Amino acid sequence: MQETYVIGLDYGTLSGRAVLVRLKDGVTVASSVLEYAHGVMDAWFTPSPEIRTKLPPDWALQHPKDYIEVLEKTIPDVIDQANIDPKQVVGLGIDFTASTPLPVLKEGTPLCFLPQFAAEPNAYVKLWKHHGATSYANRIQQTAEERDEAWLDACGGKISSEWLIPKLYQVAAEAPEVYRTMDVFVEAGDWVVWQLTGKKVTSTCMAGYKCNLTEDGFPTREFLTAVDPLLAEADEKWITDVLPIGAKAGGLTEEWAQKLNLWTDCPVAVAGIDGHAAVPAGGISRAGQMLLILGTSSCHMLVEDRFKQFSGICGRAWEGMIPGFYGYESGQCCVGDHYAWLCDNLVPASYEREAKARNMHIQALLTEKAEKLRPGESGLVALDWWNGNRSVLMDSELSGLLVGMTLGTRVEEIYRALIESTAYGTRKIVENFRDGGLRVDEIIVTGGIAGKNPMLMQIYADILQMELKIAGGTSALGAAIYGALAAGDKGYATMAEAVEHMGIVTDKVYRPDPANTEMYDRLYHEYLILHDTFGRGENDVMKRLRQYREEVRNKK
Amino acid sequence: MQETYVIGLDYGTLSGRAVLVRLKDGVTVASSVLEYAHGVMDAWFTPSPEIRTKLPPDWALQHPKDYIEVLEKTIPDVIDQANIDPKQVVGLGIDFTASTPLPVLKEGTPLCFLPQFAAEPNAYVKLWKHHGATSYANRIQQTAEERDEAWLDACGGKISSEWLIPKLYQVAAEAPEVYRTMDVFVEAGDWVVWQLTGKKVTSTCMAGYKCNLTEDGFPTREFLTAVDPLLAEADEKWITDVLPIGAKAGGLTEEWAQKLNLWTDCPVAVAGIDGHAAVPAGGISRAGQMLLILGTSSCHMLVEDRFKQFSGICGRAWEGMIPGFYGYESGQCCVGDHYAWLCDNLVPASYEREAKARNMHIQALLTEKAEKLRPGESGLVALDWWNGNRSVLMDSELSGLLVGMTLGTRVEEIYRALIESTAYGTRKIVENFRDGGLRVDEIIVTGGIAGKNPMLMQIYADILQMELKIAGGTSALGAAIYGALAAGDKGYATMAEAVEHMGIVTDKVYRPDPANTEMYDRLYHEYLILHDTFGRGENDVMKRLRQYREEVRNKK
Repeated sequence: MQETYVIGLDYGTLSGRAVLVRLKDGVTVASSVLEYAHGVMDAWFTPSPEIRTKLPPDWALQHPKDYIEVLEKTIPDVIDQANIDPKQVVGLGIDFTASTPLPVLKEGTPLCFLPQFAAEPNAYVKLWKHHGATSYANRIQQTAEERDEAWLDACGGKISSEWLIPKLYQVAAEAPEVYRTMDVFVEAGDWVVWQLTGKKVTSTCMAGYKCNLTEDGFPTREFLTAVDPLLAEADEKWITDVLPIGAKAGGLTEEWAQKLNLWTDCPVAVAGIDGHAAVPAGGISRAGQMLLILGTSSCHMLVEDRFKQFSGICGRAWEGMIPGFYGYESGQCCVGDHYAWLCDNLVPASYEREAKARNMHIQALLTEKAEKLRPGESGLVALDWWNGNRSVLMDSELSGLLVGMTLGTRVEEIYRALIESTAYGTRKIVENFRDGGLRVDEIIVTGGIAGKNPMLMQIYADILQMELKIAGGTSALGAAIYGALAAGDKGYATMAEAVEHMGIVTDKVYRPDPANTEMYDRLYHEYLILHDTFGRGENDVMKRLRQYREEVRNKK
Repeated sequence: MQETYVIGLDYGTLSGRAVLVRLKDGVTVASSVLEYAHGVMDAWFTPSPEIRTKLPPDWALQHPKDYIEVLEKTIPDVIDQANIDPKQVVGLGIDFTASTPLPVLKEGTPLCFLPQFAAEPNAYVKLWKHHGATSYANRIQQTAEERDEAWLDACGGKISSEWLIPKLYQVAAEAPEVYRTMDVFVEAGDWVVWQLTGKKVTSTCMAGYKCNLTEDGFPTREFLTAVDPLLAEADEKWITDVLPIGAKAGGLTEEWAQKLNLWTDCPVAVAGIDGHAAVPAGGISRAGQMLLILGTSSCHMLVEDRFKQFSGICGRAWEGMIPGFYGYESGQCCVGDHYAWLCDNLVPASYEREAKARNMHIQALLTEKAEKLRPGESGLVALDWWNGNRSVLMDSELSGLLVGMTLGTRVEEIYRALIESTAYGTRKIVENFRDGGLRVDEIIVTGGIAGKNPMLMQIYADILQMELKIAGGTSALGAAIYGALAAGDKGYATMAEAVEHMGIVTDKVYRPDPANTEMYDRLYHEYLILHDTFGRGENDVMKRLRQYREEVRNKK
C-alpha cells in the first residue's frame, strides 16, 4: 500500500507555510514558505503601486491576494519536493491568525478587489493586531455589561478590540458603503477554505474564540441593536454554519485541484486559529493538559471536559481546541517582548563589546550572567505589564513596575527579574484556572522561546512547581492533523488517535528544583501583593500616568 | 591700611584644601589642595608600608598624619602664592567631615601614633562613612526608644551609625585596650584645632549634629549605662566644652605659627562640619533660608529662629549653622548617585557611540534627550530610594521603585524620572519642615550638580514651585567666614555682617515654569501615595526582598 500524507497550511502574520506530513507518524517530509507581498500595512496603506496613504495609529491591514499566492506557490511546491502522487494526499487543513476578517460579496469576492473600493482601507483585511476598533470594543463592552449578557463570561468578561464584532462595527461606522455592499464579513481562514471548497463555513474554534459563540449561540440581534442601531442586522454578515474543529468543510473544487496539483474532492478541514492548532501538534488531546506557547507574547490553552464559569480567562469554547472537550484560553500579551525591550534599550556598551568579542547575541550573554544568580539574589520583583495585562486582570491600561533596585543592581538582574515576573504571571493564570474548578495536570511548552533558553525554562518550572515538557510540533503540524481528521476513512477517526500518531512531544523535560521552590514561593507572594495593589484598583497610578502621558502627547 | 585676609581650611573625604580669602569681599586670592597620602582605607588597612590587612565590610578609616600634612603644605603655600605678610592674616577657620573621630591621649597624641596600637584599626580615625558601627547604633536606638529619651527628637528619632557615640561604642566593644587607653574620642576637626591652639574644645555644630547635644545637654551617664555597662563613663571621653559656631577656640601656638609661616596667637575658630560651612558661604544668615547641597547625595540645611519638635529630620542644633539661630538638617542619601548608576549600567551602546561621536559625556547626552520631554510625558514615576531613605522616613532598608514602563520606554525617560523623583524627595523634605512649623522662604543651591545641569535645576524649581538661586561659595569659604568671626576686632562682629560681605550668591535664578507646575503637582501626588505605601509599612516588600537577598548571599 502506498504511503499517505496530509497537507497543513499555516498562515502567520508575515508569511504562509505549507507542510506535507506523513499520516502514519506526523513526520514533515516537505515544507514551503511564502512571505506576503504586501506584508502588514500598519503605517502606510500600500495595496497597489499607485496608492500610498497614511493609516491612523493602531491600524494593521493585509491584502487577500497574498493568501491566494501562498496556496498557489507552496502547495505545488511541497508535492513537487516530495515527488509524490497527488492522490497520496488524503486531506488538507488550515490554521490562520484570527480574528483577521475581510468584507466579501456573497459568492466570496473581496470588496477590495472591486475597483470602487480598491483605495478604501476598510475594504481590506483587518489583521488580528489591528487595534483601530478599540472604541467600538468599549461600546460593545459597556452594552454587554449593562445588559448582563450571559456570553460575556466565556470571554473572561472583556471584549477585545481584536475580535470580529468590534472590527465589523468599525466598518459599519467608518465605511458605511463598504458595510452596505458586503454580504459576509469572513475570517480570512474561513475565506481560504471557502475559496478551495465553495463552502461558506466556520469552525467552533474561530466562532468560539473570535465571534463570541457560546452554548447560547451568537450574540443576539437584540443585543446588537442595543449597542448601535447601525448593527441591527450585523449578524447576517457573519457565518453561522459552525462545524467542530477537525470537521471536513468540503472537497477541493475542480478548479483548485488543477491549480494546486491535487485531486478534485480532496477533503479540506474547517479552519482553526494558528495558536490553537499548536495544541494537537503538541501531543495534547486529553482533559487537564495545557499547552503553554512562549513567544513575544504567551498563550495558555487548557483542554478540559468540565464546564466552569469564572473570570480572568480570555476565552472558552466547546470543541474550540479538541473535539469533545472545552478549550479554555488565557494569555500574557508581553513575554519575550520584555526581554527584547531590555536588550534593545538598557544593555550597556561594555556588555555589547563583550558579546561581540565572544560572538554571542546580547541576550545569550545576559542569560549567561543571569544564570549565576540564585532566586532572591537580585532583590528585585517586577510586574510583567509593560504591554498591559490580558491575563486574569484583562486590563490594557496597566504598565510595568520594578521594585528593589539598589546602586548595585545590574542589567542581568533586571533581565532575570523580568523572566521571573512573566513566570509568576503564568503561575497566576494556572492558579486562576484551578481556582475556577479546572485541572491543570500537565504542561507542554512550545513557541520560539521554549527550545532556546534552558535557564528560562528552569525558572518557569521552579516557579510553577510543575514539570514542563517541550513540544516538538508546530501550528502547521496541527493544521495537518485537522486535515487527517477531515480525511475520514483515509485519515483518523478521532483526534485522540490522530494526536497519538502525529503529535510530537520531545524527550526534554524541565523539573522543579526543590532548592528553589521555597524562595520562589515567597517571591511569588510578593508578586501577588503588588499584582492586587496595582491591578485591582487599590492604587490606579498606572492608569493615571498613562492618562497624563496621553494628555501631554495630545497637547504637542 | 593694608588689605586683610582669612584662611579657610576645608577637610573633605579625599583631600584637604586651604583658601586665602580677602576679608572685605570674600574673594579667594589663593588656594592649595593636598590629597591624603593614605586616602580612605576601606577595603585594606594600610597605615604603613609594612601593614596590609583586610578590613571588614563597611569600614572606612583614615590616618591623622594626613591632616597634619595638609596644614604644613597648603597654608604656607597660599601665603606664598599671594605673596602677603603673614600679619595680614587675621583669622583661620576649619571645616571637616564628621563624625570623623579618633582616640587620643589627654595631651592630644593619637593612639595610632603609639607603637603598641600602630597595627590596631580601632586606633585610627573612623571616617564619617565608616558603617561598621551599625549594630551599636541599633542598640543605642533601642535603648533610647525604650527610655523615651527627649534628645531623640532632635535627630529625627533615628540614631545614625555615622555619629560619634556609636563609633565610640564600637571601640569600647571591639578594642577594649584602645578604649581604656584613650582619654578623648575627638572629632578630627576639633583635633586639628587642638593641635593648632592647644585648646580642647568643640563646636555647637559638631556636638549638636554628631554627638546628640541638645538644650538638655549630652546623653546622660544613666542612659549610657543602660545601653551597655561598658559605656558607663563614656561621656568622659568626649569633649564637653562647646562653643558656638564662629567662636574663637584659641590662638595659634608659637610652634605652629612658625611651621605655618603665620603669627603666634593668630585666632583660630572652632571647627564646623564641611556641609554646614557651606551655609554662610552660600549667603545664608537669616531665618527661613535653606541651603540645598546637590551632589552624589543631598543635604537640606534650614536656618530658623523657632524651636520645633517633629520627626523626619536628621538633625537640629542651636547655633549649629548660624549663631543665634537653630539649624535644622535633612538629607537624601542618594541623588547624583542615581544618575551615575543609570549612566554606568543601563545606557545602551548606541547612545555611547553617539556621545563619543559628538564628544559628549554620556550624562550630557541623556540630559539633551530628556530635556525634550515634557512633565508627564514619560509616564514614569520613581521612588528615589536606591540607597535607602534618610529623608523623612529614616529607613536605610528601603530600595528603589519604578512604575509606568511600557515597551516604548527609553533610557532618557528613566533618567528624567530619576531626576524628578529626587526632586519630589526634596519637596517632601521641604513640606515636612513646613508641616513641622518652620518657614522655608528661600532656597539657595550649591554642590557639584547645581552649576552643571540647568535642566535638572529647572525640574527642581518646577517641582518645588520655588525660585532657586545658585550659591557661589564653597565650604572652604565658609571656613574662612568662621575665621573672620573668630578674628574679633580685626574681622566681623556678627555672622550676618560676615555673610553680607563674604557670602556669595550668583545672579543665576531658576524660576518655576507655570506651564509645568500643575502636572508636577499631580505626579508628586502619585509619588506621595507610593512613598507612604512602600515607606510606612503598608507593603514592606522592599525590606523583605533585602532580607531574602541577604539570606541567599549568606548561604553562598
